[in-house]
Amino acid sequence: MIRVLVNGAGTIGKRIAHAVKLQDDMELVGISDVAPTTVLKNLLDPSGPLHGVRLYGSTPEGVESLKKGGLEVAGLLEDILKDGKVDVIIDATPAGIGAKNKGVYERYGVKALFQGGEKADVAEMTFNSVVNYEEAVGKRFVRVPSCNTTGLVRTLSAIDSKVGVEYAFIALARRAADPWEYKKGPINSVNLSKVPSHHAPDLQTVLKHIRAFSMAIVVPTTLAHTHILEVETKKEATREEIMEAFEKQTRVILLDMEEYPATSLIIEKFRDYGRPRYDMYEIAVLKDSIHVEGRKVRWFQVVHQEADIVPENIDAIRAITGIEKDKWKSIEKTNRSLGIIK
Amino acid sequence: MIRVLVNGAGTIGKRIAHAVKLQDDMELVGISDVAPTTVLKNLLDPSGPLHGVRLYGSTPEGVESLKKGGLEVAGLLEDILKDGKVDVIIDATPAGIGAKNKGVYERYGVKALFQGGEKADVAEMTFNSVVNYEEAVGKRFVRVPSCNTTGLVRTLSAIDSKVGVEYAFIALARRAADPWEYKKGPINSVNLSKVPSHHAPDLQTVLKHIRAFSMAIVVPTTLAHTHILEVETKKEATREEIMEAFEKQTRVILLDMEEYPATSLIIEKFRDYGRPRYDMYEIAVLKDSIHVEGRKVRWFQVVHQEADIVPENIDAIRAITGIEKDKWKSIEKTNRSLGIIK
Amino acid sequence: MIRVLVNGAGTIGKRIAHAVKLQDDMELVGISDVAPTTVLKNLLDPSGPLHGVRLYGSTPEGVESLKKGGLEVAGLLEDILKDGKVDVIIDATPAGIGAKNKGVYERYGVKALFQGGEKADVAEMTFNSVVNYEEAVGKRFVRVPSCNTTGLVRTLSAIDSKVGVEYAFIALARRAADPWEYKKGPINSVNLSKVPSHHAPDLQTVLKHIRAFSMAIVVPTTLAHTHILEVETKKEATREEIMEAFEKQTRVILLDMEEYPATSLIIEKFRDYGRPRYDMYEIAVLKDSIHVEGRKVRWFQVVHQEADIVPENIDAIRAITGIEKDKWKSIEKTNRSLGIIK
Amino acid sequence: MIRVLVNGAGTIGKRIAHAVKLQDDMELVGISDVAPTTVLKNLLDPSGPLHGVRLYGSTPEGVESLKKGGLEVAGLLEDILKDGKVDVIIDATPAGIGAKNKGVYERYGVKALFQGGEKADVAEMTFNSVVNYEEAVGKRFVRVPSCNTTGLVRTLSAIDSKVGVEYAFIALARRAADPWEYKKGPINSVNLSKVPSHHAPDLQTVLKHIRAFSMAIVVPTTLAHTHILEVETKKEATREEIMEAFEKQTRVILLDMEEYPATSLIIEKFRDYGRPRYDMYEIAVLKDSIHVEGRKVRWFQVVHQEADIVPENIDAIRAITGIEKDKWKSIEKTNRSLGIIK
Repeated sequence: MIRVLVNGAGTIGKRIAHAVKLQDDMELVGISDVAPTTVLKNLLDPSGPLHGVRLYGSTPEGVESLKKGGLEVAGLLEDILKDGKVDVIIDATPAGIGAKNKGVYERYGVKALFQGGEKADVAEMTFNSVVNYEEAVGKRFVRVPSCNTTGLVRTLSAIDSKVGVEYAFIALARRAADPWEYKKGPINSVNLSKVPSHHAPDLQTVLKHIRAFSMAIVVPTTLAHTHILEVETKKEATREEIMEAFEKQTRVILLDMEEYPATSLIIEKFRDYGRPRYDMYEIAVLKDSIHVEGRKVRWFQVVHQEADIVPENIDAIRAITGIEKDKWKSIEKTNRSLGIIK
Repeated sequence: MIRVLVNGAGTIGKRIAHAVKLQDDMELVGISDVAPTTVLKNLLDPSGPLHGVRLYGSTPEGVESLKKGGLEVAGLLEDILKDGKVDVIIDATPAGIGAKNKGVYERYGVKALFQGGEKADVAEMTFNSVVNYEEAVGKRFVRVPSCNTTGLVRTLSAIDSKVGVEYAFIALARRAADPWEYKKGPINSVNLSKVPSHHAPDLQTVLKHIRAFSMAIVVPTTLAHTHILEVETKKEATREEIMEAFEKQTRVILLDMEEYPATSLIIEKFRDYGRPRYDMYEIAVLKDSIHVEGRKVRWFQVVHQEADIVPENIDAIRAITGIEKDKWKSIEKTNRSLGIIK
Repeated sequence: MIRVLVNGAGTIGKRIAHAVKLQDDMELVGISDVAPTTVLKNLLDPSGPLHGVRLYGSTPEGVESLKKGGLEVAGLLEDILKDGKVDVIIDATPAGIGAKNKGVYERYGVKALFQGGEKADVAEMTFNSVVNYEEAVGKRFVRVPSCNTTGLVRTLSAIDSKVGVEYAFIALARRAADPWEYKKGPINSVNLSKVPSHHAPDLQTVLKHIRAFSMAIVVPTTLAHTHILEVETKKEATREEIMEAFEKQTRVILLDMEEYPATSLIIEKFRDYGRPRYDMYEIAVLKDSIHVEGRKVRWFQVVHQEADIVPENIDAIRAITGIEKDKWKSIEKTNRSLGIIK
Repeated sequence: MIRVLVNGAGTIGKRIAHAVKLQDDMELVGISDVAPTTVLKNLLDPSGPLHGVRLYGSTPEGVESLKKGGLEVAGLLEDILKDGKVDVIIDATPAGIGAKNKGVYERYGVKALFQGGEKADVAEMTFNSVVNYEEAVGKRFVRVPSCNTTGLVRTLSAIDSKVGVEYAFIALARRAADPWEYKKGPINSVNLSKVPSHHAPDLQTVLKHIRAFSMAIVVPTTLAHTHILEVETKKEATREEIMEAFEKQTRVILLDMEEYPATSLIIEKFRDYGRPRYDMYEIAVLKDSIHVEGRKVRWFQVVHQEADIVPENIDAIRAITGIEKDKWKSIEKTNRSLGIIK
């Protein structure tokens, strides 16, 4: 049993903690945070998915703050690390904090996963279950990239394996805020992000050899990111071959645009499936949007920004600890535990 | 075991069907519909919550249409009713269709629940678990009112029992569309509904003696309805008495506005609880919004339009069949099965 | 010619400056600000409505900042005040800054108008053209209240004059951001404001004798505020009398709900009229929403948050300087210059 | 004086009618429509921009309907055409109706402009002021393409003239509804349009030799369309050359992304300029988004869907009638009359 602790119970941390609890080869020894947020209270209250899980303060002030907020605190994060009770820590703290925490993890010899909010050099490598699981085996610090990058890696690596990717042009319509947010906008505007956006370089931390350029806009929706892609392949492919590449790729699903002409309908599918928080771990590629002409391949894909990195984190725990060296066995285990379609 | 069939697997029907499956004194003998919608396919596919449930065509054309859509059809609704295999049918068809279906239900002597989209006179009475459960015992046709009405009945009946309601002024900011909808707007507008709105008269189908007036606007959000109320009570009450009335009322929860200053945060609570489709069966009253001055009582409440009528439907099945004559026993059973907070 | 300077060229200041330019008894001697905002550049560039108007720095640092931003600066605000070249300053700086500026205005004996973002005690009185114009004659510091308050004063004073207002319950669905904003949300949420909201007390700074209670929510739209009102009158009125009261009130227009069932359509009317920035200076009361029952009067009204305070500011300039002591003459002059319907 | 009549006073028709009134070589002899819409009433009422303009019924039933709606009707469209009082008719009727009207225009020998909602073959050619003005001289039926196509033609033709366009990949984030609409959504979804979208083929009705592919999504905003482009040029260009190409192109403006990081701020610029209905006739290219790498050129551009086709229509009137054979003279005249920046 790998002993896992999740530091930071926000949008990502709470999901990973929940997923760790569902694994039969892992034990969630605790979560840690610095303030008695409403989210934390909900997670730990009798109706919450983490009821009974031990809560630590990430800092001494955090311990005080959590206690003052009426939460039961099992101690200080550093103390439990010192006692050697944690094998892997998932750092899901806000962007940039992970890098500051790294020293503590190093001091106590605990392995750590960082998230996409951290710069790539915080870790020895940036991870994707299909692309470089084996490389992560035995590493100490590994980074799981952002939701958008994970989504792009899944589909582009599928095509790359099949016919080679010469160049990818990626237009992203990013969701402007997460569903719970109530201060962030815009309400009636499309925001334009600096060109080029960071997505192509971030993609290249995993798929190092792929040339790519990305441009991003931000649109007033909370449900999902939408990607519009045009890829130049190394050799000509048929539409069937591209479809096959996507169909064979784990955590990529093909949806019919006549049935799913909108991100709201894609998300509703996962509400109907009863997924916790309607999490869509899969990348949804719109089947009828796949258009192949010579060496150009285009398609739409939809990424659930809160969720797609969860299975990658679970696999990375197995890889980093070496408890499972066969990537397909880990992937299969993770997929089954989370109800992932394929 | 009460044998229940749900006719119409839309926003409401799919939720009631799912809830029926969770009851130990009910059996979901099937669902019926007229077209192979994407929702239906999702419900019945291996990842869906109704996988394995028998599907009937509501009409002969429906049978054909479902088959053409690739779904396995167990037969025609009328046939299974004729065979006496259904005790209660939940009619969750679109507004106005229920009234047309009533003749069929009468012909085969099956009891039926109608929803709030139907006019009140479709049934012998309009139901609320706390207010008139006993009256429904043994009835043949009962109507469960709309989400807004159910929410208003829960809170107003609580105050009415305590200090009497002389008059209620109800301003509703209705959500403009459900989360899955992708064609309905508005995007950047507030729509104004005919004055008075239908909500006060509909409330009076349950709380017949309460004078009320309602005005509604429609706002561009998908998550929940928001009610702003000013109630004149028959006798003066303290704020503590009003709080106590709400606290004692089942399916009404009091939330702190500092923690929940927005409907998005209220809904996120139920995402975090892992409720299927994040359904909030409870009416959320914002604690700090409760303001009492002489005989005037004001507050905000939030209603999850897709979900609050689910427990009322489950209780109404027990009442109408008489399988449980004690309302509190039914309420307790329903609440436990659905994870309702109180 | 009254010499007017506008301090602060934001949402309100830029409109008032523009309106001052349209008056034949006023001269816009300049505007002042502290930073070279894009708005300022647009106002002053060859296509802008304030092209050619002198620009001052509100502070010495402001002078530098404006210059650094490439704008031509005529000098420091304090210097022009010292030279006695300004009769009235319109303080349209951000909320709370006006109070800090007051000392400067006092020092140089310049009269000033403050806006609704300032507390009422910043000035000798809070102004409304119809209610208390005469009282403002000869005053030194006068405050024009916020858009919502101005809207409420216009309609409530009309009813109060006719049949007396005993008590007003005001539910406000506030627009969450102005049309140009791109960071403020919410996107898909309704936010709940502290109860009671500040609107009723603010109303009472003008209509001191009216009892009122207000509750506000914030909705994801940028176009306008929507008010839902239930007023208890002192004596019974017919619907015709209420309609007449509104019809006679200046800057209140009655719109047919069948033609204008949405705030977007109301705003489009003023786009079609070619109003600069589509400014609706009038309060739109929805005719068919007016409902009278005994001593209870209810209606919807729509307030263009950016614009309705503009005519009040223009009138207040005349009142404070005493250049026009007859309120109706000032109102008529203002209305004509701005194309106000009535 | 060219005598112009506008058939259909909707979003486009009302703008063209207004623009025709501003030309010193044109006379707006009337507008025609089929129903007494609120828009029509506003246009013609004393505050409206078309007050005093003669109104015709497009059909005999239209005449009746307009009269019943209380509007003064000057007669039947066909009659005034028959009398030879119209030189050019602007058909701005809903998509597909223009083709049906064509027979009438032919019968009476009146020249006509059709809009982008009609198929290209409704006319002898599809028009753009810069690209093919001369070709339109003397034609009888000319089509002005849609807002998106007009925007694409302006920028792509600028680059094509400079360095040649080999291929253009166009991702469009379309605004979901116009600002006045209150029923159309989505509220919280991104909708996906059939691939390929019609935009590239429509572009090719003007720029026949350019290879292009387009994909479109629909986002919940009302203000403007956003285009994300990657263009492969025939020969390498520097960023400066591309900038120069855009700078030289009429009706294309370059905006700084630091000042205009959002469509809402771009639109606010034109509100501040006092443009009627804030109409942005220009295509806004975001300067800092222009990225040149080898033969690949990328940029963002923003298109005001309601307005950019207005100047093209005015020029097309001059071309089709031959009253002005020099395109630059017509463009200059149109630009000056509408206050177009360049």
